Amino acid sequence: MNATKPLTIVIVGGVAGGASAATRARRMNENAEIILLEKDPDVSFANCGLPYHIGEEIPKRDSLLVATPEFLRRRFRLDVRTRHEAVSIDREKKRVEVRRNETSEIIWIDYDKLILAPGASPIRPKLDGVDADNVLSLRNLSDTDRIKAIVDNQQTKNAVVVGAGYIGLETVEQLVQRGLQTTLVELQPQVLPLLDPEMAEPIAGEIEAKEVSLCLGRRVTGFTTDKNNQVTEVTLSDGSTIATDLVVMGIGVQPNIKLAVDAGLEIGVTGGIATNDFMQTSDPDIYAVGDAAEYRFGPTGNRMRVALAGPANRAGRLAGQHAATGNSDPMPTVQGTSVVRVFGVSAAMTGVSRVTAKRFGVDAASVTIVAKNHAGYYPGAQMMTLKLVYQPETGKILGAQAVGGAGVDKRIDVIATAMQFDGTVRQLSGVDLSYAPPFGSAKDPVHMAAFAACNQIDGIETFCDSDGDLAGKQVVDVRTPAEIERAPLAGLPLASESEGGIIVIPVDELRDRIGELDPSLPTIVSCAVGVRGHIAARILKQHGFTVANLSGGATVRNRVKFD
Amino acid sequence: MNATKPLTIVIVGGVAGGASAATRARRMNENAEIILLEKDPDVSFANCGLPYHIGEEIPKRDSLLVATPEFLRRRFRLDVRTRHEAVSIDREKKRVEVRRNETSEIIWIDYDKLILAPGASPIRPKLDGVDADNVLSLRNLSDTDRIKAIVDNQQTKNAVVVGAGYIGLETVEQLVQRGLQTTLVELQPQVLPLLDPEMAEPIAGEIEAKEVSLCLGRRVTGFTTDKNNQVTEVTLSDGSTIATDLVVMGIGVQPNIKLAVDAGLEIGVTGGIATNDFMQTSDPDIYAVGDAAEYRFGPTGNRMRVALAGPANRAGRLAGQHAATGNSDPMPTVQGTSVVRVFGVSAAMTGVSRVTAKRFGVDAASVTIVAKNHAGYYPGAQMMTLKLVYQPETGKILGAQAVGGAGVDKRIDVIATAMQFDGTVRQLSGVDLSYAPPFGSAKDPVHMAAFAACNQIDGIETFCDSDGDLAGKQVVDVRTPAEIERAPLAGLPLASESEGGIIVIPVDELRDRIGELDPSLPTIVSCAVGVRGHIAARILKQHGFTVANLSGGATVRNRVKFD
Repeated sequence: MNATKPLTIVIVGGVAGGASAATRARRMNENAEIILLEKDPDVSFANCGLPYHIGEEIPKRDSLLVATPEFLRRRFRLDVRTRHEAVSIDREKKRVEVRRNETSEIIWIDYDKLILAPGASPIRPKLDGVDADNVLSLRNLSDTDRIKAIVDNQQTKNAVVVGAGYIGLETVEQLVQRGLQTTLVELQPQVLPLLDPEMAEPIAGEIEAKEVSLCLGRRVTGFTTDKNNQVTEVTLSDGSTIATDLVVMGIGVQPNIKLAVDAGLEIGVTGGIATNDFMQTSDPDIYAVGDAAEYRFGPTGNRMRVALAGPANRAGRLAGQHAATGNSDPMPTVQGTSVVRVFGVSAAMTGVSRVTAKRFGVDAASVTIVAKNHAGYYPGAQMMTLKLVYQPETGKILGAQAVGGAGVDKRIDVIATAMQFDGTVRQLSGVDLSYAPPFGSAKDPVHMAAFAACNQIDGIETFCDSDGDLAGKQVVDVRTPAEIERAPLAGLPLASESEGGIIVIPVDELRDRIGELDPSLPTIVSCAVGVRGHIAARILKQHGFTVANLSGGATVRNRVKFD
Repeated sequence: MNATKPLTIVIVGGVAGGASAATRARRMNENAEIILLEKDPDVSFANCGLPYHIGEEIPKRDSLLVATPEFLRRRFRLDVRTRHEAVSIDREKKRVEVRRNETSEIIWIDYDKLILAPGASPIRPKLDGVDADNVLSLRNLSDTDRIKAIVDNQQTKNAVVVGAGYIGLETVEQLVQRGLQTTLVELQPQVLPLLDPEMAEPIAGEIEAKEVSLCLGRRVTGFTTDKNNQVTEVTLSDGSTIATDLVVMGIGVQPNIKLAVDAGLEIGVTGGIATNDFMQTSDPDIYAVGDAAEYRFGPTGNRMRVALAGPANRAGRLAGQHAATGNSDPMPTVQGTSVVRVFGVSAAMTGVSRVTAKRFGVDAASVTIVAKNHAGYYPGAQMMTLKLVYQPETGKILGAQAVGGAGVDKRIDVIATAMQFDGTVRQLSGVDLSYAPPFGSAKDPVHMAAFAACNQIDGIETFCDSDGDLAGKQVVDVRTPAEIERAPLAGLPLASESEGGIIVIPVDELRDRIGELDPSLPTIVSCAVGVRGHIAARILKQHGFTVANLSGGATVRNRVKFD
């Protein structure tokens, strides 16, 4: 670069990662020529807000335009070119081939540094009818407009949402709020497949409580269209059919890597563009960020795709600085932290679930606690279930999931922060969190979960997973008979009804009635949420029993679906 | 210890730390004799909930009884002795002298391990009238009952609360909710003296908006009593008087260390009982926890008193385990994390403020940002001001303060968690937090503050503290003229009105109008909250200016009180 020819930075994709890269590059370098190419009409729009405009929680469409092209030109002197699609990269000549979508004209743009932020595209099933006007995905403003127009039409009564991930669930919530009779179809036997099944169950329960028809373990096998090319009926893999006026597909995304593949850039094992710690691809003059790129994932240390807005924004900012100056901090690991609200229940997670850990071949243990979001004696406390997943040998935190009312996001953010430091459950047990009755508890749910994990590591307590096998065990329910009657531990009879059934001894009577139990039998204790079970397990262990406490008690156990 | 004589653990004080110690000790050791001595009638009550019962947010008094003596006896086989006051320790014979407060009978109780959790007592000024029936502190249930009886009395119209710390502010809130005309008196020139002045200002503003009379920088110098020994008037140091029916004293606490001092146990430099990492005092068979003990404080590494419920509970649990088994994890450092809600505004903090850092002789820098608690395009976003205090050389986080609406607790908890790992602002900038529009932003306020701090450390940006001296500087306000008219930067005229005044150049015009500024002058840029100032500062710096961005912009600057 010399005085007569400024550094030219070309950025492909103008939403989260691309826009962050462009603005940071400008702040770092007033002299650079910064060209922002976006194939669609809008840049820097509120991706994550789209469902809420359909539901009219965000009434004004303009609110979704976080930064318009005009704004970016004015404030950051960016050369924003919308409806410009990058179609190939000539790495040797360091130029990008660009099609102007309105005219199909092809131009070539030279670059010194190229930042790829092409995002991902919704996966569409290869089925007849999938291209009907009322079968839509929700990825950009034009999708939003089309879905909203159908919802706004008074003739629209029914909707089918396919895919129970974040976008699918948010869309269901908003369609129900707009008064549509909604069906949610999910291939997996649970909603939110990134969560362990019992942690996703309260979300499913909340959806069904809102009279959404929930079709789990099924996929769409066909669309019936009318003469106007409108889908009128969806057929599922079990042969059932659902009449509908609208289909929203939310079955996942595939990264837009064609440009990178054609240019010979390295692709990672998870199918994203391979990057180094500065978000550089295998060509150091080309960066990749956002949904199409790979990141280092904290729990495993491996590189993988993480299609979330937070990492995209931070990686974009970092790549923008590196491209503009040749220097930046390395990109931190990402934990895959996320949250979704579904009516009155929210679910948040970070790192890996127990199921995901197993799939990744990572040895994992877990504990589950049920606790209130703030002091129970202060009115309005809401319950949450918090599951902490960790390495049994080292105690390293591998992930956490929280589902419930208010405050699940806070607990997951605290744990995600500990994970950023490769923290252990022991370190987590010592975090000093803010407490006043409207905000938390002196022993926060985070502490309770970490205490339980430390107890398990230290051999103070053994936990039985909520889906653990109780067959052949001496199962002791330490709740009161009245509580047990209200919410029996599912799937097992009482000892009074059947041999080998559950023995009922309230915790406060356990010391006096310990003679009723056989210390030679492997024993499981259970209560409502695990607190009394902990006390009971300690009593029995000190009396020589081999005993485990059912993690999360009957509350969580009863969310498990057994075949 | 042998089979015939079980380990005897005596615990002095049955609230947060003591009760936690006793129950953990029992869980760890079924055979120990565990004696819990409490001088008052109640154990394990909800200390932090007392103001809310006065205000009837917690309507039932029973809700404050987290665990009754009967419950602790039944579930944990604790020998709970209320109205039993430990009056001396005979360390040689390992026994405690105890007075039964109802009979004044003296008994001696032997111990193998002794845990001191005596708490702290409210400081009472030595003034005539301070012992009047309507001059009360708020420390236990009997205080609560007495204050509530006065508030419940329909004749009670006015109240004076002395001390604008957490308890004082919570009490003010609740008295106002009960309809009392309330005056708040504070010796310091600000509320919440642990916060930097400009961070406490929104709390003061909220209090005044609720028509509380706020008397800062004054202390109580006298009480006027009537013939019934009721205070009717409070005299302040400025000679003013306030008629009142009730006085609540919340001017701080002193640790109850007499027992420890008399026993010759080491007292730390901050006046608390000295402890090691296992909460053992200078006598290894005696532990101390709670408000009377000292903890290792994260930001300085020094031992100091931290009178908060969270550390008390965790230290009690740890000491209980150590006393019962001889083993435990070491007590983690504490950060002094806390939060208070005052009507619609909350303030949370962790570690040290800028002012406290200075008092501790710790070199500190800070940045202040103003941001919304969640995506601005999603309805209901609330503003918060977040100040991050750090070591300028290493970037180590020393503390943070947040004031505003919803979500201040979450941000402080995230930062406190990073501090638990001796985290730096650079590490904090990479935390992967959960994001969806109702919960946060892709770039969270925590990230924005950490980005700003990193920019300052890296020399990318220099910040001018919100109370910095602007005299002799070229001050440029980069907001639009309309904005400036609505909320001018306090204390400085515009350049159009006076030589040396503020130059107005909206950020979007700065590049074209840069010739209007003198690059040889030290320059300060300011906007509403610091975001546009950041862009402007980067433009000017790259044009050779020595420039600083006013941290938090006019919003925070205008909260500073200049003499």
